[in-house]
Amino acid sequence: MNTNKGIEMHRLCTRLFPLNRSLTGEGVRQTFKILSEYMPDLNIHEVPTGTKCFDWEVPEEWGITEAYIEGPDGKKIVDFASNNLHVVGYSIPVDQTLSLEELQTKLHSIEHMPDAIPYVTSYYKDDWGFCISDRQRKSLKPGKYRAFVDSEKKLGHMTYGDLLVPGKSKEEVLISTYICHPSMANNELSGPVVATFLAEWINSFDTQYSYRFVFVPETIGSIYYISENFHHLKDKVIAGFVLTCIGDDRTYSYLPSRKGNTLADRAAKHALKHIFPEFIEYSFLDRGSDERQYCSPGVDLPVASILRSKYHEYDEYHTSLDNLDFVTPSGLLGGLTALKRSIEAIETNKTYRVTHCCEPQLGKRNLYPNLSKAKSYATIEDRMNLLAYSDGTVDLLEIASLLNRPIWELCSEVNVLCDAGLLTEC
Amino acid sequence: MNTNKGIEMHRLCTRLFPLNRSLTGEGVRQTFKILSEYMPDLNIHEVPTGTKCFDWEVPEEWGITEAYIEGPDGKKIVDFASNNLHVVGYSIPVDQTLSLEELQTKLHSIEHMPDAIPYVTSYYKDDWGFCISDRQRKSLKPGKYRAFVDSEKKLGHMTYGDLLVPGKSKEEVLISTYICHPSMANNELSGPVVATFLAEWINSFDTQYSYRFVFVPETIGSIYYISENFHHLKDKVIAGFVLTCIGDDRTYSYLPSRKGNTLADRAAKHALKHIFPEFIEYSFLDRGSDERQYCSPGVDLPVASILRSKYHEYDEYHTSLDNLDFVTPSGLLGGLTALKRSIEAIETNKTYRVTHCCEPQLGKRNLYPNLSKAKSYATIEDRMNLLAYSDGTVDLLEIASLLNRPIWELCSEVNVLCDAGLLTEC
Amino acid sequence: MNTNKGIEMHRLCTRLFPLNRSLTGEGVRQTFKILSEYMPDLNIHEVPTGTKCFDWEVPEEWGITEAYIEGPDGKKIVDFASNNLHVVGYSIPVDQTLSLEELQTKLHSIEHMPDAIPYVTSYYKDDWGFCISDRQRKSLKPGKYRAFVDSEKKLGHMTYGDLLVPGKSKEEVLISTYICHPSMANNELSGPVVATFLAEWINSFDTQYSYRFVFVPETIGSIYYISENFHHLKDKVIAGFVLTCIGDDRTYSYLPSRKGNTLADRAAKHALKHIFPEFIEYSFLDRGSDERQYCSPGVDLPVASILRSKYHEYDEYHTSLDNLDFVTPSGLLGGLTALKRSIEAIETNKTYRVTHCCEPQLGKRNLYPNLSKAKSYATIEDRMNLLAYSDGTVDLLEIASLLNRPIWELCSEVNVLCDAGLLTEC
Repeated sequence: MNTNKGIEMHRLCTRLFPLNRSLTGEGVRQTFKILSEYMPDLNIHEVPTGTKCFDWEVPEEWGITEAYIEGPDGKKIVDFASNNLHVVGYSIPVDQTLSLEELQTKLHSIEHMPDAIPYVTSYYKDDWGFCISDRQRKSLKPGKYRAFVDSEKKLGHMTYGDLLVPGKSKEEVLISTYICHPSMANNELSGPVVATFLAEWINSFDTQYSYRFVFVPETIGSIYYISENFHHLKDKVIAGFVLTCIGDDRTYSYLPSRKGNTLADRAAKHALKHIFPEFIEYSFLDRGSDERQYCSPGVDLPVASILRSKYHEYDEYHTSLDNLDFVTPSGLLGGLTALKRSIEAIETNKTYRVTHCCEPQLGKRNLYPNLSKAKSYATIEDRMNLLAYSDGTVDLLEIASLLNRPIWELCSEVNVLCDAGLLTEC
Repeated sequence: MNTNKGIEMHRLCTRLFPLNRSLTGEGVRQTFKILSEYMPDLNIHEVPTGTKCFDWEVPEEWGITEAYIEGPDGKKIVDFASNNLHVVGYSIPVDQTLSLEELQTKLHSIEHMPDAIPYVTSYYKDDWGFCISDRQRKSLKPGKYRAFVDSEKKLGHMTYGDLLVPGKSKEEVLISTYICHPSMANNELSGPVVATFLAEWINSFDTQYSYRFVFVPETIGSIYYISENFHHLKDKVIAGFVLTCIGDDRTYSYLPSRKGNTLADRAAKHALKHIFPEFIEYSFLDRGSDERQYCSPGVDLPVASILRSKYHEYDEYHTSLDNLDFVTPSGLLGGLTALKRSIEAIETNKTYRVTHCCEPQLGKRNLYPNLSKAKSYATIEDRMNLLAYSDGTVDLLEIASLLNRPIWELCSEVNVLCDAGLLTEC
Repeated sequence: MNTNKGIEMHRLCTRLFPLNRSLTGEGVRQTFKILSEYMPDLNIHEVPTGTKCFDWEVPEEWGITEAYIEGPDGKKIVDFASNNLHVVGYSIPVDQTLSLEELQTKLHSIEHMPDAIPYVTSYYKDDWGFCISDRQRKSLKPGKYRAFVDSEKKLGHMTYGDLLVPGKSKEEVLISTYICHPSMANNELSGPVVATFLAEWINSFDTQYSYRFVFVPETIGSIYYISENFHHLKDKVIAGFVLTCIGDDRTYSYLPSRKGNTLADRAAKHALKHIFPEFIEYSFLDRGSDERQYCSPGVDLPVASILRSKYHEYDEYHTSLDNLDFVTPSGLLGGLTALKRSIEAIETNKTYRVTHCCEPQLGKRNLYPNLSKAKSYATIEDRMNLLAYSDGTVDLLEIASLLNRPIWELCSEVNVLCDAGLLTEC
């Protein structure tokens, strides 16, 4: 594995980190501008405020130029310019003087994590607020404070991107990730960044399937995308993955589709089992990202999640501590590798049938050790097992699972047997 | 829960306790007279001796007026008048003088329970005998004894009762219990007493299903009832429970139907899991009451048993120690509650489907917390899960089981979602 | 069990042990001559060299008259006459003088088993070699050695035998074993010897099914047999067992068919569970004998293996230590018993249905204890359970498994109930 890819991905995270992403707005557009450097064919779409999609409609666009709190001495003690988490997402404009007691009702902090700035939004109700570390909050003295937010919510657009990399078949694998969180690294930058490098890899060889990459704001974005592409997705998508929280180094995790046994689930579990056998297997009850939409009743796409430390399951989640130290080059590289292995599993998962009744005579084809001693059989175990199980009813992923062998290691043996005319694809 | 119900049930047990119930006879009729005070609509039926039902026929009616053993000194040492367990059920008349040795062959006692009088019957073979405590038996001195039984077996009737409480649907839930055991409290008085108070509760609200309560002598009674109502029961009964041993305080138990996965089984297991997670789950191999008939091949009704301490599984079973101390108000109340919860599960177990693709927007309906912080999602978990799983293919009981939540707590959330037009019954 | 049978089987092993069996040749013919004494109806077949069967063809016949190594002092230090394992199977003729260094390349021994002569063959590539104990090999001094093999591979025949014992039905149980290994006792003599005594037993009573016994050289023999009898076997065989490694005393083992749930699998597991509950259950991945052919895709016969210590799983396997001490009379008798029990399971595995709705009245047929006391029910548990579960949809093997009772102990109770008209075969 090319460890440089880990470093390159971390660098891209670093570039994207300071941008003030939200459901909509300039931060999202700046993010796509950078991503387009890596994916020149990425299509950027703008959807007008108020566009209906199922039960929802696209919200107003939010813009913010400046926001701070001035202390009793007139100095800025909290400033959006220094960390965009300081302002509650979608805050309305305000310029108000408040007592400390009044100010407290508009502050958010985390008592048990005194140095973390929490991430808070109020997308669908007009409100404003500031997020600060609990340590700072506790140091505030009584007095008069000025809260200032220069923002606007206006008719505008929701921005999203997608990219189709065509393969031999029109059947598609869907990769969905989101670009609506400000300065946090695992949730969310690891998602779009790993997706970007996965697209690069997919582009580097001839794939069996087509690959659809979708970069949307979470929830409203995937709902819009499904509503716009409903029949196409239902017809074409054979497997899909939501990419989020895929850049830290602590563990690997899997969250199933609602059905739990789709091709995406099988491929993800297979890959993770052979990469990191201790991976955490969550329930669909633990869901929390766009699989909520892709797997909703009536939509029911075969979409699973491959993660490292799952959202809600690490302390730094949705705080300023989910930063560029928490996400590492090797963490990102591990995430990318898990996706690549899962996709290899999907690409190579065909069904084969033997061409002869009974075992073929491998010896005359130089495919069998000539001298029979105890245990000489073991050296060609994969070969013999592939011949014993390929009856045209079980696919390679199922055989690999029976043999407890990674499918990517069985493939060369499958090719040997196909070349020798002993196996044939169904 | 109304603890007074426990006390009321225990009082009814106390009234019924002294009556000399058997397969047939006056004790049964007196029992029904008292039960009718609680269930004025209870239908009492009399079936003539000799009536055929499947492989069986209704036996002769048994009556007994007096029975005792006189000791060598002419004093009564064992007297039916003081405890009706003293006489083997269906004993034929006798007036005989015997040596102690001869008498011993007609005595029954339990060596390892020196103070218990055992319960013994001889329904289908002419015989007589006395049951005494082992302590008394060991104290008997050699000498002449007089055994006297004034009884008769004659052409008469077998008495049983049933009650139908109609619901919106003609589909029925069957509650079957028995009234053929003399002075014992858990097996059997707890059964008919809990059934009586369950009928009162069913009568107190509008039910979806109709409820059929059946009070029969065990085995011959249920066989007769099935033979008389075979097609009706097969057509209408969607779930049923045998009620026995449901009044002590030691544990809760479940015994499956033969198929093991009927609605009755699902409801019983669901209720017990949330009432008393350590409940004992028996096998159908452990059966021993009227489920033997209801679940027999060709009959195959969906009938399970909910019990507290199961017959055969407590030392006091079928002895004079199965008394009004062993059965308690809280034991009876717990049994009644388990039945009520199981019935609530059946009543509310419908199948729902969401009305929108993707998650609906709960915020605009004031069904979602507006300020998004880490974990704010948790407070509406039931709501989100009901929307995620209601795809029209799984019923509410299955969803409750997936969520590990009692169905009776999910119901209010289901109503909220139906009222909001987000869920619809299939 | 007749322990004399164990001694008789061990004696037959002792007679067959010295013969130089191989895929083909005189050793095989001598073996069949002796087996025919026990099975006069055994058909011996000769298949010409070069006969095609699926992907294979019958090899040349191998004959050997003399083979030895002379040491530097001119004395024979290794001699085929003293142990036929000394020569690599199918060795071509040689008469050559070699340095010790050159000789080493033609020697086979096992370093961690210094006293064992290994068993080595080279069926399909022209080669020669000698097998000796590692202790002897290490004692060899530098000098000139003479290697002499007087053998020939020529157009000839492959010899095999089969025997059909007809039953009431034309459906067949297949027993397959092999006769191609020289002086080793568990693998392989236990196989043909237990098969021989099993045939004797099958001949001793009227069976439901017909029994086909097949004695072939491993792999090429079973492939030939399947190719010759393909449609017959596919049509008629309802269950089959490969017999090998079935004569030692250490354990019992089971190796499934590829499907894993055939009648053969069910019968084998049932028998072993009640004979030796700690039996080892292997996976089809551990296969290594003729089930490789019988269970190959497209052939898919219901063939499982019942073994004692499985090939590859005991140190003595494929060495001179797999001898007449390792295989014992009680080991062989245990193996025979496991087969007999499995066959009894197959013979008696019918599906029954009760003739009455509800439990029949056993009392009037003297099939029930008349006096009802606590636990009197237990004494007729099998009877009641057979009546409760025989609904015409589950076979006796499944009921036996539900009851955790050996099917051979349930049979008498089944007969009682059939005779009483309470059960009927479907």
